[in-house]
Amino acid sequence: MKVQGTSYRSIWVNTDDSSVISFIDQRFLPHFFLVENINSPDAMFRAIKEMHLRGAPLIGIAAAYGVYLAARKARRSKDFREKIDSSILQLKEARPTAVNLNWALEQQKKVLKKANHEDEAVAMLLENANKMADEDVAMCRSIGENGLKIIQEISSRKKKGEPVNILTHCNAGWLAAVDWGTALSPVYQAQSAKTKIHVWVNETRPRNQGANLTAWELVNQKIPHTIITDNAGGLLMQQGKVDLVLVGCDRLTARGDAVNKIGTYLQALAAHANQVPFFVALPTSSIDWKMKSVFEEAVIEERDVNEIKSVRGKSSFGLTQVQIAPDESTASNYAFDITPAKYITGFITERGICTASEEGLKRLFPDK
Amino acid sequence: MKVQGTSYRSIWVNTDDSSVISFIDQRFLPHFFLVENINSPDAMFRAIKEMHLRGAPLIGIAAAYGVYLAARKARRSKDFREKIDSSILQLKEARPTAVNLNWALEQQKKVLKKANHEDEAVAMLLENANKMADEDVAMCRSIGENGLKIIQEISSRKKKGEPVNILTHCNAGWLAAVDWGTALSPVYQAQSAKTKIHVWVNETRPRNQGANLTAWELVNQKIPHTIITDNAGGLLMQQGKVDLVLVGCDRLTARGDAVNKIGTYLQALAAHANQVPFFVALPTSSIDWKMKSVFEEAVIEERDVNEIKSVRGKSSFGLTQVQIAPDESTASNYAFDITPAKYITGFITERGICTASEEGLKRLFPDK
Repeated sequence: MKVQGTSYRSIWVNTDDSSVISFIDQRFLPHFFLVENINSPDAMFRAIKEMHLRGAPLIGIAAAYGVYLAARKARRSKDFREKIDSSILQLKEARPTAVNLNWALEQQKKVLKKANHEDEAVAMLLENANKMADEDVAMCRSIGENGLKIIQEISSRKKKGEPVNILTHCNAGWLAAVDWGTALSPVYQAQSAKTKIHVWVNETRPRNQGANLTAWELVNQKIPHTIITDNAGGLLMQQGKVDLVLVGCDRLTARGDAVNKIGTYLQALAAHANQVPFFVALPTSSIDWKMKSVFEEAVIEERDVNEIKSVRGKSSFGLTQVQIAPDESTASNYAFDITPAKYITGFITERGICTASEEGLKRLFPDK
Repeated sequence: MKVQGTSYRSIWVNTDDSSVISFIDQRFLPHFFLVENINSPDAMFRAIKEMHLRGAPLIGIAAAYGVYLAARKARRSKDFREKIDSSILQLKEARPTAVNLNWALEQQKKVLKKANHEDEAVAMLLENANKMADEDVAMCRSIGENGLKIIQEISSRKKKGEPVNILTHCNAGWLAAVDWGTALSPVYQAQSAKTKIHVWVNETRPRNQGANLTAWELVNQKIPHTIITDNAGGLLMQQGKVDLVLVGCDRLTARGDAVNKIGTYLQALAAHANQVPFFVALPTSSIDWKMKSVFEEAVIEERDVNEIKSVRGKSSFGLTQVQIAPDESTASNYAFDITPAKYITGFITERGICTASEEGLKRLFPDK
């Protein structure tokens, strides 16, 4: 997608500089556009853990490149495979909730097994990470094409010239994947198809990925949008100002329950109460076919409470952290919540659209 | 209630200084405790409009003192009554949503009619404003005593030593009234009664009245609490970590639909979905007996979009505003939403508790 008119992916191999990995450092958006270049698996671990990059699809791809960096660094050392294994274990622990991270590491472990010697392993891991990145782009584009049908169907029922109002929570745009994104991919496809749209952007506390990242993407793509607090979606739905909710997903169970950014559940409840279609967009890699009971099994990441007690933004002093709570107060910071399938209208995947149920998923994925 | 061990009301007559009106300037909490002293109705208009003070009960009382200040200022001028009428009209426009403002101004208009001369009018308006303030304190204390029964009933079903976990949205504490508060009054009563409690404090974007004001009140009262984002309540309720939701109200219709701080509706939906009791605490003055169809008649205040695009807090540079959104993005800032009666368990008023319905209200208020 575009950054001030130039095409970018969120992560890429920097061929100018002995194949280090480059990515957009999302911590400084929307205020500063910075690219981070790294050449070690430790740096990739930190980048994922400290959210220089984030988004379920992207952290999978980033971890895959992390394994490549591990192999590259371990080359010509005594314990080549042990060092890579240790990096894989470390990368797996960087974020607990999204299933894509583990999925990507498993793919790279399979590739590693096939390699006959160190140089071949490095080359194969890079090649496979690139392939996974390209596949992610293709999947996200397909998600967009499939989701476009939903937007166009709603648009066909609107008065001429009236936009389809789409509410989204957090950032499931191209910054959360390699390109296109998941929940925002149908939005970008709608723009290409000249279907009139307007996006309600939930700011998404505590880290404000909506106000920081989704809004920044939409500014760069010149898509009409309005930032709102996470509190406002219910009122807008009551007032008939939301036609469709599109969100991403960090882990979808085989039964159709979705683990996603904290607050998604509240938006789903409001959509359900007001008969607003609520779709979860995701690539197959976000489906955890083994997890049955999401409430018992899903690990909900708890992050630093300073993300709650403070907010970071741009002031006349540059990027500044401001404290919004009393020193003496405690806080808690759950990063994800669970939206039961019954509140979800359907899933938009690269294979097509299905209803939010075990049966719906089985019909779309008979091979799983 | 207490501020660092000293008892305060949120507003009072400063008898040291020729009866100007003093109040806590809430814009600087929790970081700085400042008292504002004013002697004109224009200053009171600005204080209400720019939210130096806020909260449905408090802005009613503040407006009543505003009429007194208008009379005090207009004394010995040609158009005594016209000037007061003009101030009343101005004060009425300061905030559109809470019914208490208009209610308080109507009370003062009645008093003004009875006065025989200017000095008597000034004295009667002050006396009546003081009376209204005292009545507000008494009502809020009664709300607390009535709400305490609900907390104690829940406490009796808990294991020994386990606190009752109460979630609250925005600030309906003593800062929102003259003393005690509405939704927090039962919490303070529970503390006095030695009933073990813990409060989940929704930060309440965009103005963070939860993180700024509710947390500050609870720190000063030494009540255990945890600040969370507005997004987190759903997950906590799914996990069984919330026993009771208590919120205030800016306008309650005769049918039992509640207009309150934006986001209240989402918390109510989550409480309803998870069978968590959801109570609205309010004094009678917040009931609008004339409003039937809340969706058609309620005026939802829209505030400055910079409240959405920016957050204010304490930094190493003092109180600082930080921008969290791109310059180019638009935003919208609805300050209230509507919680239909069907999602509310009941109302806690100074007269007692009733179910959230037209019938429930009629039973408690047969005289209305």
